Amino acid sequence: MNVFYCPDLSENSFSLSLEESKHCIKVLRHKKDDEIYVCNGDGNLVVARIVDANHKSTNCKFLKDISPTSTKKHRIHIAIAPTKNMDRIEWFVEKCCELGIDEISFIQTEHSERKVLKIDRLEKRAISAMKQSKSFQLARINEMKMFKKVLPSLEADQKFIAYVDNDNPDTLKKLVSPEKSYCVLIGPEGDFSPTEVKSAREAGFIPISLGQNVLRTETAGVVACHSLNFINDY
Amino acid sequence: MNVFYCPDLSENSFSLSLEESKHCIKVLRHKKDDEIYVCNGDGNLVVARIVDANHKSTNCKFLKDISPTSTKKHRIHIAIAPTKNMDRIEWFVEKCCELGIDEISFIQTEHSERKVLKIDRLEKRAISAMKQSKSFQLARINEMKMFKKVLPSLEADQKFIAYVDNDNPDTLKKLVSPEKSYCVLIGPEGDFSPTEVKSAREAGFIPISLGQNVLRTETAGVVACHSLNFINDY
Repeated sequence: MNVFYCPDLSENSFSLSLEESKHCIKVLRHKKDDEIYVCNGDGNLVVARIVDANHKSTNCKFLKDISPTSTKKHRIHIAIAPTKNMDRIEWFVEKCCELGIDEISFIQTEHSERKVLKIDRLEKRAISAMKQSKSFQLARINEMKMFKKVLPSLEADQKFIAYVDNDNPDTLKKLVSPEKSYCVLIGPEGDFSPTEVKSAREAGFIPISLGQNVLRTETAGVVACHSLNFINDY
Repeated sequence: MNVFYCPDLSENSFSLSLEESKHCIKVLRHKKDDEIYVCNGDGNLVVARIVDANHKSTNCKFLKDISPTSTKKHRIHIAIAPTKNMDRIEWFVEKCCELGIDEISFIQTEHSERKVLKIDRLEKRAISAMKQSKSFQLARINEMKMFKKVLPSLEADQKFIAYVDNDNPDTLKKLVSPEKSYCVLIGPEGDFSPTEVKSAREAGFIPISLGQNVLRTETAGVVACHSLNFINDY
């Protein structure tokens, strides 16, 4: 089952984006009158008929709503310092989107090696992972901002900061309660600075460990995401 | 702290491999009389002194055993059909080794697209992930074998087979008990064939789901590994 993505499915007739149209008509060779599946990234999935098989803007007519019912009662937001290596960031986004994540924020921290981050490629990777996972929920991906500036705006029922502290006996597993909204901060390769940890604690973030092994930044992000989904899975 | 790898630390004097020697002397520019850390991949970590700073074969003298005490009471073995894309297999190996895994077997299944798999690169990736994670436990990586042939030799307290079956309500989370040895079978992109599922069930493997989202092969492998570690983490 191939699923296409179109953020606005509110009208009876809609057109796929340039990218999705190309994939639908040029790659998968769909024709006029073919029935396809289209999701809006917000949990909705519809059956539609191709009215105009234009490879730049495929026009479709809504046929039927077949959205799965969601029983999800938790919300995951990860705010992470992107790694120097772009492949590792892309991989983090892909895997979290496959596993299920609601929001990803990129933060620039004192020890960040990466000062610039283009999110277009990451958004494409997120769309493709959403289709692959059949979750039909597209994560919101926020442009990179200074950690200090973004910190006060990070709201959740449970807020955690993961950093290397061998004296901290608290694990995510110990502290997390199910069916909550969560925000987890993940630092860069050189970790958060003591000042950053202090401000995060003052803003209500609780220090946690993600287990005994020392994890790379992107692995820590995926592990936090999977752990929270795992705790909430029935 | 840079850690080097030498599988045999039983003697008072030992030499690093070509690769490790190059890294130690050429890359990190260690000199004669420097003290370095060396692990054997079996949980042992020692302090050693460089006696001969040869970049092809660095000779070291044992000084002190500083092996961490392990409280690990579980064992993870994942038998997986490698993906067509080599990057995804390498990523799977790296992430499992970071998270902690004891054994990885590669299986060739009916729907496998990949017929050949060289494991040298994977072993290097495993060594580097072991050093990064500071676990000092090196996973055993087994050459690819036919699924049918390897199936009878896969032994564990709890054996699971993960495949796509929308009617299966059993998740890994529901069925797993802590402090056991586990073996999990992960199929290729096209999944296990019905015959393969049947033989696995006959061999004592219990069908499980890894959650609601459809996961790529390599993601399923990492998720299985992390879930088992998570359940066993205190």
